[in-house]
Amino acid sequence: MRPSGRAADELREIKITRHYTKHAEGSVLVEFGDTKVICTASLDRNVPRWLKGTNQGWVTAEYGMLPRATGERNNREASRGKQGGRTLEIQRLIGRSLRAAVDLKRLGDNTITVDCDVIQADGGTRTASITGACVAMIDCLRHMQRNKIIRDDPLKQLIASVSVGIYNGNAVLDLDYAEDSNAETDMNVVMTEKGGFIEVQGTAEGAPFDQDEMDAMLTLARKGINDLLDIQRNALEAP
Amino acid sequence: MRPSGRAADELREIKITRHYTKHAEGSVLVEFGDTKVICTASLDRNVPRWLKGTNQGWVTAEYGMLPRATGERNNREASRGKQGGRTLEIQRLIGRSLRAAVDLKRLGDNTITVDCDVIQADGGTRTASITGACVAMIDCLRHMQRNKIIRDDPLKQLIASVSVGIYNGNAVLDLDYAEDSNAETDMNVVMTEKGGFIEVQGTAEGAPFDQDEMDAMLTLARKGINDLLDIQRNALEAP
Amino acid sequence: MRPSGRAADELREIKITRHYTKHAEGSVLVEFGDTKVICTASLDRNVPRWLKGTNQGWVTAEYGMLPRATGERNNREASRGKQGGRTLEIQRLIGRSLRAAVDLKRLGDNTITVDCDVIQADGGTRTASITGACVAMIDCLRHMQRNKIIRDDPLKQLIASVSVGIYNGNAVLDLDYAEDSNAETDMNVVMTEKGGFIEVQGTAEGAPFDQDEMDAMLTLARKGINDLLDIQRNALEAP
Amino acid sequence: MRPSGRAADELREIKITRHYTKHAEGSVLVEFGDTKVICTASLDRNVPRWLKGTNQGWVTAEYGMLPRATGERNNREASRGKQGGRTLEIQRLIGRSLRAAVDLKRLGDNTITVDCDVIQADGGTRTASITGACVAMIDCLRHMQRNKIIRDDPLKQLIASVSVGIYNGNAVLDLDYAEDSNAETDMNVVMTEKGGFIEVQGTAEGAPFDQDEMDAMLTLARKGINDLLDIQRNALEAP
Amino acid sequence: MRPSGRAADELREIKITRHYTKHAEGSVLVEFGDTKVICTASLDRNVPRWLKGTNQGWVTAEYGMLPRATGERNNREASRGKQGGRTLEIQRLIGRSLRAAVDLKRLGDNTITVDCDVIQADGGTRTASITGACVAMIDCLRHMQRNKIIRDDPLKQLIASVSVGIYNGNAVLDLDYAEDSNAETDMNVVMTEKGGFIEVQGTAEGAPFDQDEMDAMLTLARKGINDLLDIQRNALEAP
Amino acid sequence: MRPSGRAADELREIKITRHYTKHAEGSVLVEFGDTKVICTASLDRNVPRWLKGTNQGWVTAEYGMLPRATGERNNREASRGKQGGRTLEIQRLIGRSLRAAVDLKRLGDNTITVDCDVIQADGGTRTASITGACVAMIDCLRHMQRNKIIRDDPLKQLIASVSVGIYNGNAVLDLDYAEDSNAETDMNVVMTEKGGFIEVQGTAEGAPFDQDEMDAMLTLARKGINDLLDIQRNALEAP
Repeated sequence: MRPSGRAADELREIKITRHYTKHAEGSVLVEFGDTKVICTASLDRNVPRWLKGTNQGWVTAEYGMLPRATGERNNREASRGKQGGRTLEIQRLIGRSLRAAVDLKRLGDNTITVDCDVIQADGGTRTASITGACVAMIDCLRHMQRNKIIRDDPLKQLIASVSVGIYNGNAVLDLDYAEDSNAETDMNVVMTEKGGFIEVQGTAEGAPFDQDEMDAMLTLARKGINDLLDIQRNALEAP
Repeated sequence: MRPSGRAADELREIKITRHYTKHAEGSVLVEFGDTKVICTASLDRNVPRWLKGTNQGWVTAEYGMLPRATGERNNREASRGKQGGRTLEIQRLIGRSLRAAVDLKRLGDNTITVDCDVIQADGGTRTASITGACVAMIDCLRHMQRNKIIRDDPLKQLIASVSVGIYNGNAVLDLDYAEDSNAETDMNVVMTEKGGFIEVQGTAEGAPFDQDEMDAMLTLARKGINDLLDIQRNALEAP
Repeated sequence: MRPSGRAADELREIKITRHYTKHAEGSVLVEFGDTKVICTASLDRNVPRWLKGTNQGWVTAEYGMLPRATGERNNREASRGKQGGRTLEIQRLIGRSLRAAVDLKRLGDNTITVDCDVIQADGGTRTASITGACVAMIDCLRHMQRNKIIRDDPLKQLIASVSVGIYNGNAVLDLDYAEDSNAETDMNVVMTEKGGFIEVQGTAEGAPFDQDEMDAMLTLARKGINDLLDIQRNALEAP
Repeated sequence: MRPSGRAADELREIKITRHYTKHAEGSVLVEFGDTKVICTASLDRNVPRWLKGTNQGWVTAEYGMLPRATGERNNREASRGKQGGRTLEIQRLIGRSLRAAVDLKRLGDNTITVDCDVIQADGGTRTASITGACVAMIDCLRHMQRNKIIRDDPLKQLIASVSVGIYNGNAVLDLDYAEDSNAETDMNVVMTEKGGFIEVQGTAEGAPFDQDEMDAMLTLARKGINDLLDIQRNALEAP
Repeated sequence: MRPSGRAADELREIKITRHYTKHAEGSVLVEFGDTKVICTASLDRNVPRWLKGTNQGWVTAEYGMLPRATGERNNREASRGKQGGRTLEIQRLIGRSLRAAVDLKRLGDNTITVDCDVIQADGGTRTASITGACVAMIDCLRHMQRNKIIRDDPLKQLIASVSVGIYNGNAVLDLDYAEDSNAETDMNVVMTEKGGFIEVQGTAEGAPFDQDEMDAMLTLARKGINDLLDIQRNALEAP
Repeated sequence: MRPSGRAADELREIKITRHYTKHAEGSVLVEFGDTKVICTASLDRNVPRWLKGTNQGWVTAEYGMLPRATGERNNREASRGKQGGRTLEIQRLIGRSLRAAVDLKRLGDNTITVDCDVIQADGGTRTASITGACVAMIDCLRHMQRNKIIRDDPLKQLIASVSVGIYNGNAVLDLDYAEDSNAETDMNVVMTEKGGFIEVQGTAEGAPFDQDEMDAMLTLARKGINDLLDIQRNALEAP
């Protein structure tokens, strides 16, 4: 039995709200159950210095959590004077994943920065961030096409992300905090519409995991990501 | 005429949503028109080192903005490695204002940290923060009483805050960004229920202001703060 | 009775010594009683990046205290690795005040940086800094005219600053440390020669203050600032 | 054909030199071909604050590269003032992997810090680090037993790590820099003696990878890790 | 001929003003010609952690320059966020020199921090700092004896410091900025009353120097330091 | 008797291994007994901003120690977020010394950065670094000539460095850690082939030292440096 009563292959309630804040070119509130992340995509008509002259754009991401997004208040990274290792690791993962979804050559001399800010955390903030960030980025790409900043759609494929893990000896999908903090193994998977893997990051928190467990987890991940892709597509159909 | 079409003494639409996120002892979404701030009050059963043994609690505040809360994306303070001068100035103001509302001696050996995080900015983020933070702090004080952490209510008085300014030669209440960025004078006022001033911070952005303009602004501030106090009281009546 | 025996509307002994150090284009030692601040104005034949091409100059300020300017030694900000919130707040105030005194368009592509370094503190360091910095800046403007760097005098008006407060229930002018640390209310005022307000920053340290107290304080401030302006004018008459 | 002429399932020449420097409780030079890493294990008779009183020890890792370990000189992290995201990500991975190899409860109130410093880089620095760090840690554990600091051996199992990837469409083992910088997919695997997975981190650098490719890579990884475990065991047999 | 017209073995005009600021236990303005440094000695009734329980006190120093102490304005170290290498090198030298003058065992569990802040620089700021800091420290030691904080005088000997160098092929004493910036060799010497060397730091800025030049410089240094010691003794005779 | 049994004028066993790592233009492992330092010289086809347009190159150095190069582990400077004062002092010394060996005008618009990283410390790390860095720099200069980056050899002279000190009342050469930590006086000397002094830095750790002791130390230094120069020349004769 999962703490939430969900079936092993059941996602939490997923919501994607577009146009959540008014200034950004793309702005999404993504909810994986009680995990809530604001993803905004900002267009910068410029590229990082090391890309100048290469005729290629860039997509990058930053990640943060409000200090009291969690059960215990965490010190504010801005006031501690640096981003922690976990934060840097997550934002590198989000950026890599998003870049896998677009053809950077079609972006022109432009940079899209996607900020993923967790306002409430209940497990799976990085997978929710990637899933929401992809939608926010697409809204930004549409803005760029509408405004003739780019001609062709740089989107190669939708991507989505979900966590899977071994909890009480069973493979389960989309772990919430109650499961995540007690899971034997935790694996984050990023996949494309066509079923390809972008990222697979599995960590044994307690006992090592074996090939069978990995296969069981990946099967669940594939199922969950298909569900998430449908939710993304639905959200993107609205204007 | 104001850009928003409001009367000179008219607040924007104000909303205070309590219990906005689930982990914090007090959590409020405060909206002054399009300015939206999440204020969470976190209880720490401890006091700063310099207060140990004084039998007195502490209230402090931190302030932040999501990078794309504004029209142009700002660099994330956590990634730049420090909070800017404006941020520090605002969080010092919020903290001082909140401490004026409570009897620290009745707080016991406890610290309340109120985080004010702007998710969308349209002028007046510091006055909205103070107004919302006061409600979040009160929810935290109620939590402490319910859980027998403190016996007596430390609240001395409600406080609220509003901006006033001289725009196109006229005194106006509760400036939004369109006014704020063009105002000749900008003044932030924090007041108590009994009509006392906690903070008055007026700055001539262009021409100096005179005593008559100051009086006109303070009259508007008094009116606006009374309206805000009513909205706070209404919000606090619900369970 | 004030601790210093001064009348309620009496400034401390004020001294302004020009040409205090030899390298700077403007260099002033300003003394408000035992509060002593070195204000130097440095000319940079350049403007910040965000002003390039706007045909407008800039004036900015930095503030510091020697570690043992105060009764207890404070850690050196350079060795702690950052300027504190109080420091940033004060230097922002000084810079804003000075910019109100000059026509930036007449400065050409030049920046004036005024450093205010407190070598001995006894209350009122920010008001002494502004009052002295204005004189140092004027010496720098004269240097620029003498050296044909600019043609017209960019000075719009003299500015000066003084603190007022409520001490033992009475409004008093120019608080020293003994009063400042016990005042119910502390207000810093920056005014021009023509009697306009540039900044009014009042803070209730204990009980809130009311309109009558504010009026009493502002009356004292006006008187004190007129005295300070006379002292500035006298100092500036010498070569 | 691989650039090095190796077979797809062939490791580079691996060397593990124990007692490489004289001060550390464990000191290993590990070489994966031209990748050379000094791994030192340092004993601290203490635990981090958050572990005090839990009767449990700790193992942690730090990672660095000499500035010119690589083809182009990188800025020194100590002089830039912070460790980069890649560095933090790698040292978190090494620490997690090592903790999976020991029973922290048997460590007593002691911390082992393993420093992995790359003196020459040619791809695979993180997998070489983990493989060498495990041996250095074991020398430190032996030191602790010899000196009666702990009674029972905390080692649960040997761990080793290797990279696998898809290069020119084929799965290959232990990528060197020439392959790594052109691989379509790069996967780092950490495994135990008993064949369990500790970490699996696969990233599509170009095209997404599919289940078949993942299976091919994991098969190679299993083979390579068995070879590495033999080399570790041989090295550990010497006194 | 020296730019200042001084003889080769002639010091600049030296002034030592005690009781320069009012808060510090020792406060000295030291002037070596146009080089002016405020040296304050602050007593802390405590020792650094690594000295606790050793029954030994500590003396340390910090050094700074006002941004416009020099011909060109330097960035403020507090705002750049770190002390530069030159600053750290100088303050380490001052601290080491002062510690050579006292018997730390007689200091009790106390720390003296001497802050040397250059308000005007014209060469030789480190030698002026050491010479003035020694006097400020002695005033602090006297304060401690007067207030029965320590019983015996910890002072072992006076120390003073001067620079010597090779300028235009000749050995010269106490270089000012005009000489210092063109000297072939620059040497800073710290000596005791009894003629012993505490520090000798010679650097060839252009051509290497030979033994004869070193001997000539040391002879001048000995002469200059004897003059400085007389000036220190005179200053210390006043109450 | 010295702890190592060496004669007073006897160096430790010195080894210079060129081509130690494969990427750098110059790479040397230098060993002074158990002190081992990797010195790499990296060519950058560029000059610092303040040298642009002066037709002059630059040589600079950075210094670091692996955390466990010493008997007790030191915190990693990269993770503490800054280089300590000792590190900065040493790398400034190395850079100044190397610049004395070359004619910067003959370097063209190029910068050579020499990194000295101590992998094992047993006293004298700065003198070993300078001695090894000179050889690494020369290999870089040869690389530049071979590749027609520069035409003429910028090397003016070989330099080498050694420490001398007063240990148990006697002058000794090339102190190891056992001596260094107990020496009354410690002096680091940098000299050229022609016998000129580049740097002399003597510090009395306990009692002051006198002229006779200085002379004795400098005689030893001269002898030691001649031996080191021979070893450098031998090393440089190989291809």
